[in-house]
Amino acid sequence: MTYLLQVDFKMDRPFGEEMSKAFVDLAKSINDEPGVIWKIWTENAEAKESGGVYLFETKEDAEKYLTMHSARLESFGITDIRGKIFAVNEALSLINHGPIK
Amino acid sequence: MTYLLQVDFKMDRPFGEEMSKAFVDLAKSINDEPGVIWKIWTENAEAKESGGVYLFETKEDAEKYLTMHSARLESFGITDIRGKIFAVNEALSLINHGPIK
Repeated sequence: MTYLLQVDFKMDRPFGEEMSKAFVDLAKSINDEPGVIWKIWTENAEAKESGGVYLFETKEDAEKYLTMHSARLESFGITDIRGKIFAVNEALSLINHGPIK
Repeated sequence: MTYLLQVDFKMDRPFGEEMSKAFVDLAKSINDEPGVIWKIWTENAEAKESGGVYLFETKEDAEKYLTMHSARLESFGITDIRGKIFAVNEALSLINHGPIK
């Protein structure tokens, strides 16, 4: 079973192209974090919110990452961080072509 | 560009195997909703929370689905529904193997 982590928070900038450029090194480092299968980077320039949805191999990996990532975001001055971890329901997700592996 | 919808809410039951069986028809119907590319079904039996993460072809499709789905959840007696729509940052998501297409 895989685990999904969803994180979102308030952020004034960057968005779009500027965001893509600013976080290349951070994105590369995420591939080296234990248990990370994939991450989708999310952004809403209008609402000034940003975040990410991750798939992890285990619940423990997701929990450790969330603790580390929340501290990193806070060190950037980011507030209103919301992180939630869920188990993936495989049978239902497979009906809806969910990329769960 | 694709759009991500994340939805979560409080739910007493069902979870796990019981959830997989209860929502087969609902899952099948979601494949027919306009603009849905995939859905991952999420659950947390301990916290009594459940939800889903969806990828949509357009922002408008995601907005229409969220309006319809929130009303459906409320009709089930579900409360504390939180739905958020984000643009996907493609460049960064591709670095992290994000399934964004």
